[in-house]
Amino acid sequence: MTAANVHAEATSAGPVRVDLVFEPGARRVRVPHGVTMFDAASWNGIAIDSTCGGHGTCKKCKVKVLDGPAPPSPLDIRAFTPEELRGGWRLACRALATADTTVEIPPLVTRPKAATVGVGRQVILRPAVQKRYLELAEPSLRDQATDAERVLAAIDDMELRVDLPVLRTLGRVLRAADYKVTAVIVDDALIAVEPGDTSGRRFGIAFDLGTTTVVATLLDLSTGTPVAVDSVLNAQQPFGADVITRISATMLDPANLDRLSALAQQTLAELAATVCERGGVDPAEVYEVALAGNATMTHLVLGIDPEPLGVAPFIMSTRLYPEVLAADLGVGVHPRARAVVFPAFGAYVGGDITAGLLASGMDRDSRTRLFVDIGTNCEIVLGNAEWLLATAAPAGPAFEGAAIRCGMRAADGAIEVVSMTPDTLDLKVIGDAAPAGLCGSGLVDAVTGLVRLGLLDSSGRLVPAERAAQLAPGLAARLTRIGEERVFVLHGDPADPAHSVYLSQRDIRELQFAKAAIATGWHILLEEAGLAAGDVQQVLLAGSFGSYLSPANAIRIGLVPKLPVLRVVSAGNVAGEGAKMALLSLRERAAGLALLEEVRYVELSDRADFNDRFVDQLAFPG
Amino acid sequence: MTAANVHAEATSAGPVRVDLVFEPGARRVRVPHGVTMFDAASWNGIAIDSTCGGHGTCKKCKVKVLDGPAPPSPLDIRAFTPEELRGGWRLACRALATADTTVEIPPLVTRPKAATVGVGRQVILRPAVQKRYLELAEPSLRDQATDAERVLAAIDDMELRVDLPVLRTLGRVLRAADYKVTAVIVDDALIAVEPGDTSGRRFGIAFDLGTTTVVATLLDLSTGTPVAVDSVLNAQQPFGADVITRISATMLDPANLDRLSALAQQTLAELAATVCERGGVDPAEVYEVALAGNATMTHLVLGIDPEPLGVAPFIMSTRLYPEVLAADLGVGVHPRARAVVFPAFGAYVGGDITAGLLASGMDRDSRTRLFVDIGTNCEIVLGNAEWLLATAAPAGPAFEGAAIRCGMRAADGAIEVVSMTPDTLDLKVIGDAAPAGLCGSGLVDAVTGLVRLGLLDSSGRLVPAERAAQLAPGLAARLTRIGEERVFVLHGDPADPAHSVYLSQRDIRELQFAKAAIATGWHILLEEAGLAAGDVQQVLLAGSFGSYLSPANAIRIGLVPKLPVLRVVSAGNVAGEGAKMALLSLRERAAGLALLEEVRYVELSDRADFNDRFVDQLAFPG
Repeated sequence: MTAANVHAEATSAGPVRVDLVFEPGARRVRVPHGVTMFDAASWNGIAIDSTCGGHGTCKKCKVKVLDGPAPPSPLDIRAFTPEELRGGWRLACRALATADTTVEIPPLVTRPKAATVGVGRQVILRPAVQKRYLELAEPSLRDQATDAERVLAAIDDMELRVDLPVLRTLGRVLRAADYKVTAVIVDDALIAVEPGDTSGRRFGIAFDLGTTTVVATLLDLSTGTPVAVDSVLNAQQPFGADVITRISATMLDPANLDRLSALAQQTLAELAATVCERGGVDPAEVYEVALAGNATMTHLVLGIDPEPLGVAPFIMSTRLYPEVLAADLGVGVHPRARAVVFPAFGAYVGGDITAGLLASGMDRDSRTRLFVDIGTNCEIVLGNAEWLLATAAPAGPAFEGAAIRCGMRAADGAIEVVSMTPDTLDLKVIGDAAPAGLCGSGLVDAVTGLVRLGLLDSSGRLVPAERAAQLAPGLAARLTRIGEERVFVLHGDPADPAHSVYLSQRDIRELQFAKAAIATGWHILLEEAGLAAGDVQQVLLAGSFGSYLSPANAIRIGLVPKLPVLRVVSAGNVAGEGAKMALLSLRERAAGLALLEEVRYVELSDRADFNDRFVDQLAFPG
Repeated sequence: MTAANVHAEATSAGPVRVDLVFEPGARRVRVPHGVTMFDAASWNGIAIDSTCGGHGTCKKCKVKVLDGPAPPSPLDIRAFTPEELRGGWRLACRALATADTTVEIPPLVTRPKAATVGVGRQVILRPAVQKRYLELAEPSLRDQATDAERVLAAIDDMELRVDLPVLRTLGRVLRAADYKVTAVIVDDALIAVEPGDTSGRRFGIAFDLGTTTVVATLLDLSTGTPVAVDSVLNAQQPFGADVITRISATMLDPANLDRLSALAQQTLAELAATVCERGGVDPAEVYEVALAGNATMTHLVLGIDPEPLGVAPFIMSTRLYPEVLAADLGVGVHPRARAVVFPAFGAYVGGDITAGLLASGMDRDSRTRLFVDIGTNCEIVLGNAEWLLATAAPAGPAFEGAAIRCGMRAADGAIEVVSMTPDTLDLKVIGDAAPAGLCGSGLVDAVTGLVRLGLLDSSGRLVPAERAAQLAPGLAARLTRIGEERVFVLHGDPADPAHSVYLSQRDIRELQFAKAAIATGWHILLEEAGLAAGDVQQVLLAGSFGSYLSPANAIRIGLVPKLPVLRVVSAGNVAGEGAKMALLSLRERAAGLALLEEVRYVELSDRADFNDRFVDQLAFPG
């Protein structure tokens, strides 16, 4: 399938699906037409033996087709006897799901290890990074196999390509180590041959490259366990808080592309060094990294000109990234370590969302769920195992604390929780600090509290002072003015509001605009799907902001559909979780890629009805 | 097939073969079991439509299986209707030759261009380097395909991967060029997108990297025409004349590996610059290079430690090379130009021989032929389209002029032809210079002349002076002594032989050793094949030395089998021709690779009977 086909399919009514039943156990799964039986099983947590990971080389993924079409592949003809072929035996990695089919899976030879990651996802460990300890026979005049052949012959269940730098020193390594070596494999590449037995040590780093914050998790790939985690601010910050200011910087001065690229790479490199040090891992033992970031961050870190992302019609350079090395991201781990870069749906539904969806398992869940990642740009995905719709809503910077008078990022001193009664006001502040400003969740809390008490009417206007005094006698004094503008003082002296931490009428408008954009987005998706808000069985609030937001308040201001509060859950840093899954499982990685074909993108910016709908959503629900 | 299988097969009795008949025309070909119909046809000069070159993406190589097994591949099921499938229609690039089969090829939609290269080989032009001029639609909110998808969708007959550096600037290039661009493709990689229409300009450079001499040919890949040729001495010369001295240098001082690698790369880079300048070609218009060299030269130019090649049991790092760039060879052409590096059969039957065999077409010719590349190491291949046997004979440096008292390389001043009668001696000297020494062909001529006149007996001893005066009165005076050793003066004063150009008794012994080693090699191959010398239908003398050698004299001293002289032909620089073929045709390139599976290597150094046989071959034939 060419990229053009992917695009055509992604924007059509969605792919055709078929039903597969796996025996024993009659486990029924519904999968896109044309995927392999092997992938279909793996994506649904059903294990099939394999050491090559579905590359068609180990010939271990034998299954028996009990009912349904099963043309033998050329590989089947080599792998099975004519009798076995007639009996329905096929290699699962080559058999395509083209119609409803029943398949029997023989008992597993090896019990696979698993780890829990993402939104409660149980992932069978099958990392791209493999190690094999080998004790090889010495060559002789009777056995002149090349050094590379000698190593590859001992790994005969895989068909590997060998990196040139491995060949440069292979002869010396083999002879110095007395032909006792460990082969380091990433996917289908032999990236290193190490002296002795190092098979117990293999690590990866999952990066969540955010516009603001960058998180790195060092993973032990043998066990799936996180060894160390760290997060820092993206060093690109001086170029602006959001993606648009950073794209603009490259348009003003082309040299800024190199600068921004270097700063992103420097951020990743510093994090990698930190997590390796904390985890007691030699950076040379890190053989793969995974990166989830929005389209702009991903373009910038790879040195790809982001200009077309920043202006209509918002065009990415690419949806899928070519094979890159960790070194291409500036990360100083093993020099031939690979990098998995998450693909993007669109300029404003990036690789972080692909990773987040993978972690959420939305594409494999029969429940209809709504995924909302709230930020300057808000990404929204609606759907279930049958179909998925995605869009991006321009929420603006309110939730990041920008464009809010006393706004700030969720750092020390930020008010993150605001609780109000008619007589009292309680604040919870991040860190051991005096309140210095208001972060996104505090903003939502404050507005929700004011709406609940009636101090803010449903149109978003602060009520007159007399009305406030009636409704909330203990808080009315906080309602004052700075110049012409009405404000509500959260911390400090209401008599000197300019030196207090306050919420202004304009701040409230900013929040209304932001939530209206988001609500318009999911309303349009619901309409496209022919569903009502009540049909949504679960809302996943994603991203670091989502973790802080109170589900009850999100419902109250209309940021998410009006549902029982238990149906709204904070999913945490799903982008980072998706990146971890890609490191732990080749199948999950493939599933992430497959999402590009399964999700239909709905563009909002060219809809004639967008503004009318937006205005409809400005009010706070009654 | 893994490398281990290749090795096992290469050292077994040889692969199984099947017969294919192509209609119309009932063209019968015999090919290795398991190759595709597409390759089988192409290798035999039978054209089948294709734009992707057999990658399974263009779906144009439709053929109809008239008789024989034809399980449909998964791709067939997508490419054909059930009715067509029942009718026997298959994609030739996916149909495997597993038994005798008759196949119908529909009339060609496009008539392929061809060029004559190699040993009279007609090669259908299908270079890996392709250019496509594209006029693309501008993106809009209704058409948000990425820049990469936009380009790839316009090349929908191929499934391409995109180099990261192309993505870095793609957005800018497309917009600056008003979406009128030329895509540059090498094999399955999009390596560049150039503004405007540059489709008429695509070039490649074929390198023959010899231990002594390095040759570069700049080829116009659109026409197959050589644009410029140049040759220079290998800049590694100061490290020694032969491969063993250069390997030894890396063993004495590991830093010498980097030095030798840099010198080889510098040699290639200088040649590339020269041929581009002479041909009026911008180096950035060279998108692919091909390199044929012996195993040591190939290891060194790629920076691979050659030590195991130099000591028993003579182990290569690898037979096949990974994908490399021209930049990995130090060649400053297009920065993402690919390099094709010819694979080697063994430590002493290198990529130069693979290329030479490709150029000779031995693997596709029903005649039994003997290929002899004469040098310090002499490579010998015997066989036909059914089977091929190869070996390497340690001839020593006699033919390079080294170890010969007055020996020299075939440069200005070298005596290259010696003609004798009992009374006269005529010399032909290279260049406009006085005779300064004797090169390989002159050495063979001189020895042959002396044998023919009887001045040298069949055991290789110069006859006594009295006998010489009877047999060749005009030459007897030239037979004199330097110290204890008898010499024959070729040029200068016989009274002062130490200052003349002469041939010594020990020089004659060196030549005897060299020719005995070679003759032992082909005798053993003939015996392995169960053939007699008279069964050889043609002898191909390869390499630059082979071009200078007189076939009649090669027969007379027993360097090649005693055959009618017209059956011994000089094939010229076949390694360079093979490199050109690899640039001009993807199918020929694949055929070169397939040779590794078709040739069985016979190791001489562990044969108990080698020394006895060698002694048998020392004498000159009566």
